[in-house]
Amino acid sequence: MNRYKTALSATFILAAFFLFSCLPVYARDTLKAGSEDKVFNAKTFTLENGLQVVVVENHSVPVVTQMVWYRVGAADETAGKSGIAHFFEHLMFKGQDYPGLGKVAPGEFSKTVRSLGGNDNAFTSQDYTAYFESISSRHLETVMSMEAGRMRGLQLPKELIDAERKVILEERRQRIDNDPRAQFEEQLDSALFPNHPYGTPIIGWFHEIEGLNWEDATAFYKLWYAPNNAILIVSGDVTVEEVRKLAEKTFGIIPRTDIPKRTRTLSPPFIALSSVRMAHPVIKEQVFKRQYRVPSARQDYNESMALQVLEEIMDGGPTSRLYKSLVVEKKIASSIGLSYRPYSWDDSVLTVAGTAMDGYTAEKVEEAIDDELRALIKDGVGEQELREAKMRLQAEAIFARDSVAGPAMVIGYTLSSGVSLEDVESWPQRIETVTAKEVQAVAARYLDPEAPTPTPYVNGYLYPAAPASGETSSDQEQGE
Amino acid sequence: MNRYKTALSATFILAAFFLFSCLPVYARDTLKAGSEDKVFNAKTFTLENGLQVVVVENHSVPVVTQMVWYRVGAADETAGKSGIAHFFEHLMFKGQDYPGLGKVAPGEFSKTVRSLGGNDNAFTSQDYTAYFESISSRHLETVMSMEAGRMRGLQLPKELIDAERKVILEERRQRIDNDPRAQFEEQLDSALFPNHPYGTPIIGWFHEIEGLNWEDATAFYKLWYAPNNAILIVSGDVTVEEVRKLAEKTFGIIPRTDIPKRTRTLSPPFIALSSVRMAHPVIKEQVFKRQYRVPSARQDYNESMALQVLEEIMDGGPTSRLYKSLVVEKKIASSIGLSYRPYSWDDSVLTVAGTAMDGYTAEKVEEAIDDELRALIKDGVGEQELREAKMRLQAEAIFARDSVAGPAMVIGYTLSSGVSLEDVESWPQRIETVTAKEVQAVAARYLDPEAPTPTPYVNGYLYPAAPASGETSSDQEQGE
Repeated sequence: MNRYKTALSATFILAAFFLFSCLPVYARDTLKAGSEDKVFNAKTFTLENGLQVVVVENHSVPVVTQMVWYRVGAADETAGKSGIAHFFEHLMFKGQDYPGLGKVAPGEFSKTVRSLGGNDNAFTSQDYTAYFESISSRHLETVMSMEAGRMRGLQLPKELIDAERKVILEERRQRIDNDPRAQFEEQLDSALFPNHPYGTPIIGWFHEIEGLNWEDATAFYKLWYAPNNAILIVSGDVTVEEVRKLAEKTFGIIPRTDIPKRTRTLSPPFIALSSVRMAHPVIKEQVFKRQYRVPSARQDYNESMALQVLEEIMDGGPTSRLYKSLVVEKKIASSIGLSYRPYSWDDSVLTVAGTAMDGYTAEKVEEAIDDELRALIKDGVGEQELREAKMRLQAEAIFARDSVAGPAMVIGYTLSSGVSLEDVESWPQRIETVTAKEVQAVAARYLDPEAPTPTPYVNGYLYPAAPASGETSSDQEQGE
Repeated sequence: MNRYKTALSATFILAAFFLFSCLPVYARDTLKAGSEDKVFNAKTFTLENGLQVVVVENHSVPVVTQMVWYRVGAADETAGKSGIAHFFEHLMFKGQDYPGLGKVAPGEFSKTVRSLGGNDNAFTSQDYTAYFESISSRHLETVMSMEAGRMRGLQLPKELIDAERKVILEERRQRIDNDPRAQFEEQLDSALFPNHPYGTPIIGWFHEIEGLNWEDATAFYKLWYAPNNAILIVSGDVTVEEVRKLAEKTFGIIPRTDIPKRTRTLSPPFIALSSVRMAHPVIKEQVFKRQYRVPSARQDYNESMALQVLEEIMDGGPTSRLYKSLVVEKKIASSIGLSYRPYSWDDSVLTVAGTAMDGYTAEKVEEAIDDELRALIKDGVGEQELREAKMRLQAEAIFARDSVAGPAMVIGYTLSSGVSLEDVESWPQRIETVTAKEVQAVAARYLDPEAPTPTPYVNGYLYPAAPASGETSSDQEQGE
């Protein structure tokens, strides 16, 4: 079941991500409209027990997506217990019984949803954990009372823990330990976030997952899972009043608890430049990957807006700067990308990465990237490319509303990352106000290769390695 | 007072370190004797409350050194509270009152000791915190009852906390933040110990020291300071029976407590090679510094013995391999050193570092070091250099017993690092048994630059920087 879950949620996240990252051609026409009114026209209210409820009405098809977002994730784990947030997400499917909300046997949750023609899943990030069901709107009450039932009514059988731990260790083996690229990612994150929980993988370190037990899971659940630490989002063929009634009948009967204040340890200042080198036989071309720490939308909404436009200008498809320069013109990279995810509680990560063409080195790709960054900082961006980048971004917003699950997903990760619903709704208009000067300013402030002291970033170099030969990372290091 | 304390303890530690690291010429003659009997002939017993007591009789001069070693250090701090162990060490001088052991006003502890012609100090490491007094033997009872009195009877005035925090922040500014070499050290440790407390500086991260308060200090004290988590060592002009009587009268009246099991988070496997680069105007020559994670004496006593001999062969003064090769012959380094400190609870660190001669790069020094390591691994060590290295080490042991404070220091850091007194006493004989093959084996296992996957180590490069110019670490990085 786990593999199914993982696969499904991966697809789902991919889909939602697609909403905010690809440009549907037809959207160009409707652009004007999109930059004037709200993105989702979502309605929100809060129950007496502190549960925030958000409703996005969409009556195009008779289905709803229900999502519950808990404001807790891997970054809220205690030291040495890495992986408990994700481990616990799995355990939420292991049986529940809450007075007035019915009983569900271990493993029956998803079966019930599917027997009603729906599908369900869950996923864990550093800052939040989300559970969702997409189903015919007439079954909303059923899934809502099931979802509410496991908010405080989980009945976790001790004997299931060992089996689930095995499942998760296997998941980690498959997704990370057998994939040098994923291992490389972990090493970069670890170097980019010293003394900060973002340096610890969401799934957890293998040796710490091995030590997780029933007591850890139960303590984590009791501490963080409560109505006043969650957001309920219902999107689709339903009215605000219907959702209010159902929410009060189900989630409404669960009392609020004392939720601890989120305290995250902080990294010391970056006074040195760290780099990470890895070599592996499965790697065929050299890869350069740099990760910067930049403000999240919660930390600095204005700068995060400028960074989103910057991302689109540098990496918005075939006409974007990096692709044109490194892939089309210089032909030193087979792929190139710059990505910025503004929705995190603490620092966000801006990643720029390229795969070297055969015969070129990762260091050569790095130089070419730095040239583009210097040009951006020195000459800024043109009005034309700025306008086009904004248009593409705004078109994504228009596209985002044309689905049932999309709005729930977008509103979920933005709100649980500390961004207000107003900011989400006015996103296209806010994007419109970003100036060329602002884009140049954030580039100069965060991405300058000539910065007198290193801004918080880490350089990563991934090299091929002949399986049998002595060629190793440390050889590469000596090659400097 | 703090500056005085710091300076004094630094000198003291230096002196004790000297005992085990320099060769007094006259010692060569007494070598035979040294390799036959015990190093210190220490006697040990344990009080009913769990306090271990060690006595080293030395009646050459009418003085004693008393040390109390607590089995708690910076690595036992909770995440986000870095620096509390060292902070608390300062607070142990801020006044005490324990029934039957008298009262001491804030700041009076050291004054009293000095008024009796003695001196006192304290120091904190990752694994232990030690307090000591050196004084005329007739005053032993006074200082022992004072030392016992603050084991559980500390009366910490809230109003002193802010002032002491300022003192410690100033200490950190002076010793680390104003010293690029010390900052460089911190960065290397942080990279070498991801997800492990040894990656956090003993003095603490500046921003976390700022947050330490009275509650943190009191909780730390109550948790860790107790007779069953300490070792009392008395060395000098006193008999075992005298110490037993005094110890029972003083420390003996303090009840044992429940001491938490030491739980240290562990690093994930090293699958990539990390390097740290720093540039600073005060740096005049380039420096290369590599730190390896190798077994501590507690983890693998046999390998740690071989590593101690290896250290002496590679860096035992003017005739040692690294100095001869890099400084005398190749003339590419102005200084070179390899050091291994076997006495830590978790992994120990083996450091090899060199300062480039004017006109040479850190990378050049790295290559030359790797050449020496390859030669060591390929050809092993000669019988002659092995014999000489052992002689020098054994001579240090003989020298170590010829002082009052030395034995207390050596026994303290070995025992509190999980090494048995028997192993300390038989150290010279144990060194004698180390074979050339064993030395070659640990070199191949831990220091091989050609290792197919990186063994746990980090490379550090420290560069000069023109104050005004744009030359920065990141430029250096691009220079690769």
